[in-house]
Amino acid sequence: MNIWQGIIIGALFAPSVWAATTPASMDQDLAYQLVESLTVEVGPRIAGSEADRRAVQWALNKFTQLGYDKVWTEEFDMPGWTRGQASLEVVSPFAQPFVLTSLGGSVGTPKAGIRASVVMFDSIEALEKADAAAVKGKIVFINKPMTKDKSGSFYGQVVAARSRGAVEAAKLGAVAIVIRSVGTSNNRFAHTGTMKYDETIAKIPAVAISVPDAQNLAKMLERSSRVELKLQMENQLEKATSHNVIAEITGTEKPEEIVLISGHLDSWDQGTGALDDGAGVALVMATGALIKQKIKPKRTIRVVLYGNEEGGLLGARAYAAKHHKDLDKHVLAAESDFGAGRIWQIESRFGDKALPFAKELQQKLAHLDIALGGNSTYGGPDVSVLAQAGVPVVALSQDGTDYFDYHHTPNDTLDKIDPDSLKQNLQAWLIMTETVANSSVNLRH
Amino acid sequence: MNIWQGIIIGALFAPSVWAATTPASMDQDLAYQLVESLTVEVGPRIAGSEADRRAVQWALNKFTQLGYDKVWTEEFDMPGWTRGQASLEVVSPFAQPFVLTSLGGSVGTPKAGIRASVVMFDSIEALEKADAAAVKGKIVFINKPMTKDKSGSFYGQVVAARSRGAVEAAKLGAVAIVIRSVGTSNNRFAHTGTMKYDETIAKIPAVAISVPDAQNLAKMLERSSRVELKLQMENQLEKATSHNVIAEITGTEKPEEIVLISGHLDSWDQGTGALDDGAGVALVMATGALIKQKIKPKRTIRVVLYGNEEGGLLGARAYAAKHHKDLDKHVLAAESDFGAGRIWQIESRFGDKALPFAKELQQKLAHLDIALGGNSTYGGPDVSVLAQAGVPVVALSQDGTDYFDYHHTPNDTLDKIDPDSLKQNLQAWLIMTETVANSSVNLRH
Repeated sequence: MNIWQGIIIGALFAPSVWAATTPASMDQDLAYQLVESLTVEVGPRIAGSEADRRAVQWALNKFTQLGYDKVWTEEFDMPGWTRGQASLEVVSPFAQPFVLTSLGGSVGTPKAGIRASVVMFDSIEALEKADAAAVKGKIVFINKPMTKDKSGSFYGQVVAARSRGAVEAAKLGAVAIVIRSVGTSNNRFAHTGTMKYDETIAKIPAVAISVPDAQNLAKMLERSSRVELKLQMENQLEKATSHNVIAEITGTEKPEEIVLISGHLDSWDQGTGALDDGAGVALVMATGALIKQKIKPKRTIRVVLYGNEEGGLLGARAYAAKHHKDLDKHVLAAESDFGAGRIWQIESRFGDKALPFAKELQQKLAHLDIALGGNSTYGGPDVSVLAQAGVPVVALSQDGTDYFDYHHTPNDTLDKIDPDSLKQNLQAWLIMTETVANSSVNLRH
Repeated sequence: MNIWQGIIIGALFAPSVWAATTPASMDQDLAYQLVESLTVEVGPRIAGSEADRRAVQWALNKFTQLGYDKVWTEEFDMPGWTRGQASLEVVSPFAQPFVLTSLGGSVGTPKAGIRASVVMFDSIEALEKADAAAVKGKIVFINKPMTKDKSGSFYGQVVAARSRGAVEAAKLGAVAIVIRSVGTSNNRFAHTGTMKYDETIAKIPAVAISVPDAQNLAKMLERSSRVELKLQMENQLEKATSHNVIAEITGTEKPEEIVLISGHLDSWDQGTGALDDGAGVALVMATGALIKQKIKPKRTIRVVLYGNEEGGLLGARAYAAKHHKDLDKHVLAAESDFGAGRIWQIESRFGDKALPFAKELQQKLAHLDIALGGNSTYGGPDVSVLAQAGVPVVALSQDGTDYFDYHHTPNDTLDKIDPDSLKQNLQAWLIMTETVANSSVNLRH
């Protein structure tokens, strides 16, 4: 019998130490305690801000208190974007204010604001097909709704309006862009998130309005072909730095082999970053700490709290650049960054010969109602950078049905986390991480 | 057989014209069309504002278009309160901003703001029992949650902190008051509403924070006995006027006898006033118009859209003062001001001899799943002024389970109205209003 069969049989007959021995103890609450601490004691922590620096200090302190063997930070440079005041109102014919948020990275307006009439499109694809004559001098409004599902699979389709809408609108001569929030709730919150410019195209201000406001604006446009808006916005961009915060439980047999588990420490500034990504930060911090309390793992468990995920995976890129010579020693990388819903699936990106190990992991997680998914996951936003560099990844897929109700809005607060779901997440992270860290499996292609 | 028995038997065997003959027609959608028009074309309309004046013009135009026989306004003087910028942040030890709203009528702060530490109370009753030494120089925080129910019966208990918290806190030397939002949702919205001062007590600024922020602040106070807040707020108070907008379908047999149905035209400024009280405005406007299309009522149907309900029933008081000599000709008064949930009960405040008529009304509404309630209703906020003056009232009680999730927050928008529930409301209003307007019943004590 080969090693894989042995492991699989072992898995079937020897339930994980976590499943078998962890009672309803303090341990199970550790992730909740950590995310509560982060959201209450630090709160929102946009990358490069003073709050971000406090979050880094919070993480260093917690890692130390939790008994990690090594704790350090890795600094990186980044563009530091600061949100200023913003307002958007209908000037005529139906004067009223809208609830908006600046998109991350957007330029502001002239101090007097921008006043122009609106032209609406159902999608960025429709905008791209438009005549410049219909767009020039106007405020483009993209009114694309987003559908809910467990895996958030509609996000990618809708978020394009946010990411590159300003560039496409500016190509056609628009003076600003307003998008319907990329989210699934009809709460009157506007959904922020990062957007991009093209250095060769005029940079126009970009904002999102809440879903009820988008519906309202669409109804105005049914009544009048000339709806005038006024946008005022003050944002700042300057050089800044942020940090990845890293901590390790040193492996006893193969300390140079790294099992990397991660989340991102920065958050958008509208909520308190509970779901995105306080929960992920808390889960991976708790995972390393609790494993150390119970066993001495053979491989090193490295917990990485990335900085500036929200601005475009800047911490993840800095990590990959700094550690590019050691990436072949990264046995596995994984990330929690999709809220705090129950984990329902494990996906992998392993070499073909390692596929039985994915099945083994799933069997150890089966009592948590976790099924086996495919072998083509990107692993999560930050970890995708490592996956692209050839590091094997797993994704413990969370139920994200409600994630885009809260994500990137003021509503991303601690009360949206279900403590029981977070416990189930923690169990899965403990089992997965321990299993890999205590094995000698090679997961590469 | 007396007249009541005849009416009751008639009711049992002759279903209302509305129930029997109204198909799924435009008529049924009229209330939705009206509330859509008001929220899209006017939007928020705080009493005394320019938007309030546009709302008055909107109502005059709509009443005229709908074929009412008489349409007019009645002006009244009022204090005009304008919300300015406001911010509330934790200064130490856990610096972060809170989501807040000024309470209606609150004074602002000095330009530099007010910075002080927080003292928390579970309720206004606990505050009232406190020692001045514990409160003097501090910001009082009242952290009382509100429970949901169909009839909103917990509102009265919780709203006292909003109405008179500033006075009670100032008596003990507090420099400001922050209340947990009077609402039942954990969405991160702060709930506004009117508050009162006592001219003999110092006027201190009063704000509400959202439920997640209140929970966050309570958790900070578990961790630190000295949590410092900074409040900055600019509000204005000046003399203003508003209007009641009134329209009539003139009675054919007893035009001097008035069946008054009503809502209030003003709204708070955070949402678009869809549930509070666009729905009520739309329902009563549609009711008179649709009755006129089908029958010639014997009594006059008077539709009153009160101004400035939110500031303290000012339009209702002005109406009662102006019409005090005619109140004995008011056969009945009723109001819709509790959102747009399905009507589940009819309550009355009739003379004892008229109680069979309450039962008759209920029997005509039974096919809409409307039960008979008691005979001690106050009729609704504005109509309570008439009830106190001896005018008989009925209340078509709406299911308000979710009402305080939205009420007085930015989330009071059109999408929160269920069109089917609004249709059921309209049917009930049509049946009730027609029945009273076409009868000669005396409902008085």
